[in-house]
Amino acid sequence: MCQLMGMNARRPTDVMFSFAGLATRAHEHKDGFGIAFFEGRGLRHFVDHHSARVSPLAELVKTYPIRSDVVIAHIRKATQGVVSLENTHPFVRELWGRYWVFAHNGDLKGFAPRLHAAFKPVGQTDSEQAFCWLMQELAKAHANMPAIEELNHTLRELLPQLNRHGTFNMLLSNGQALWAHGSTRLHYLLRRPPFGHVTLQDEDLSVDLAAKTTEDDRIAIVATEPLTRGETWVPIEPGTLKVFLGGEPLC
Amino acid sequence: MCQLMGMNARRPTDVMFSFAGLATRAHEHKDGFGIAFFEGRGLRHFVDHHSARVSPLAELVKTYPIRSDVVIAHIRKATQGVVSLENTHPFVRELWGRYWVFAHNGDLKGFAPRLHAAFKPVGQTDSEQAFCWLMQELAKAHANMPAIEELNHTLRELLPQLNRHGTFNMLLSNGQALWAHGSTRLHYLLRRPPFGHVTLQDEDLSVDLAAKTTEDDRIAIVATEPLTRGETWVPIEPGTLKVFLGGEPLC
Repeated sequence: MCQLMGMNARRPTDVMFSFAGLATRAHEHKDGFGIAFFEGRGLRHFVDHHSARVSPLAELVKTYPIRSDVVIAHIRKATQGVVSLENTHPFVRELWGRYWVFAHNGDLKGFAPRLHAAFKPVGQTDSEQAFCWLMQELAKAHANMPAIEELNHTLRELLPQLNRHGTFNMLLSNGQALWAHGSTRLHYLLRRPPFGHVTLQDEDLSVDLAAKTTEDDRIAIVATEPLTRGETWVPIEPGTLKVFLGGEPLC
Repeated sequence: MCQLMGMNARRPTDVMFSFAGLATRAHEHKDGFGIAFFEGRGLRHFVDHHSARVSPLAELVKTYPIRSDVVIAHIRKATQGVVSLENTHPFVRELWGRYWVFAHNGDLKGFAPRLHAAFKPVGQTDSEQAFCWLMQELAKAHANMPAIEELNHTLRELLPQLNRHGTFNMLLSNGQALWAHGSTRLHYLLRRPPFGHVTLQDEDLSVDLAAKTTEDDRIAIVATEPLTRGETWVPIEPGTLKVFLGGEPLC
C-alpha cells in the first residue's frame, strides 16, 4: 500500500521531521515518491520515480527547511500504471487561478469516467483519472472559486462516487484547505500548545516542537499510519471527508 | 533582463554544464529561477524565488545528472509582478494529456487578453497571462493533440499577436518539440558529431563533450546570450519562431 502524508498549518511550517518519518517507510514503497509544498498561491512540486531511500531529491527535502502552509506527500507502491515519472503522485492541475494538488492511496476498479472537458491524464494511473474527473466536476459545479464551505458540499457529493469503485484514501489541496478522504486507513493529528517533545514511530529521532513553534501555531498532520509516538492520532472513519483550514479541523 | 535557456535532444541528455553557465549570470538576476525537465511525458519542475546563486535547489540541479529530452530554464529579474514563488518561471499547464512548459523574457505592455476558458493565471505576471492565452487559443484551434507541423502553423499565427505588445523572447515545450520565439535577443547552437571540448563563456570551466556523448547524439541549446566559447551560436532573427525536434532544427 502507498503511504500518504499531508500537513495544514495556520502559519508556514516545515515538515522535515514528518517527512523523515514517512521516508523511513520507503523500503516497501520503492516505486517513487512526491511532495508538493504550497507557499501562498505558489507551489513547489518534487517528484521522483526512484525510491525515497536513495533519491537525492528526498535527501534535499529532509534537510531543506521549506516553510509551507499546506504539504501533500506520497510514497508509491505501484498497483496500476508503470513506474515512471508521469505516474508519480502528487498530481497538479490549475483551476480557477489556483494550483490543486492530489494524492491517492488505493485502487479503483473498472473506473473509466468520461473526461470531456479541460482535464486529461498525462500518465496511466487510475488515480490521475480520478483527479481529472474531480477537477472536471468541480469546474462544472462552480464558475469561479467558491467559499471553502461550498467546496466541502460539492466534494461530499463527488467523493462517494469515486469511493464506490474501490479504495479511495485521498489528500487534496488548493493551498488553503486540506481535504482528507478516508476509505480504509488514514489518521490525523492536531498539534496545539502546549507543544512538547515528539518521537518518530520507526526511528529514535525526536524533536522539541516547543523550540520550533509559538503559542499561535496550529498544525494538522494527516498520514496513512501514525508517524509519531506519544501523540493522539485519530483514525478517519471510512467513507468520511475531513477538512483542515488554518491547522484546525473544520468539520 | 531575464535569462532563458532551453535544450532539446534526440536522446536524454543532462544540462548540468549549461545550467552552471546560466547560473553564474544570476548576480544581476536575483529574483528567482526555475527549471523544468521532461523525461518522456513526465516532468520535474523546480522553482525558487531566491537567487540561483544561493538556492539549495540550484545547487542540486548543478550536481544532479538528470537526463532529459527537453529542458526549459529561466533566471528572473522581475519587471512585472512581485518576487514570489507563483511568479517564478517556467510555468506549467496540462493540455491534451501533455504537460506544457513556458518561459518568457521581456515585457508586454497593455496586454489584457480575455481569458474565458480553462486556463487562468495563478500569479500576477504578464508572462503567465500570455501563456494562459496561448494555451486557450491552442485548445480552441485543435480538439486533440495535432502533429507538430500543425502546431507550428497555429503558433505562427498566435505568437505575432503577443510580440506586438512588446518584447516576447519565449521558450515553449510539450516534451517533444522545443519552440523558441525570438523578439530581441535569443541564440541557438546545434551540437553534432564530432563532439569536442567546450568552455563556459563566463568561467574557466570546460567539458569534453565527446566523453559524454555518442555518434547518435544531436543536441540543440537555446539561450539569451551564448553560454560557451568556441561554438557557433546563431542569433534567432527578431519576430521568428525556431522549432527543434530530436535535437535538430525543423525549420
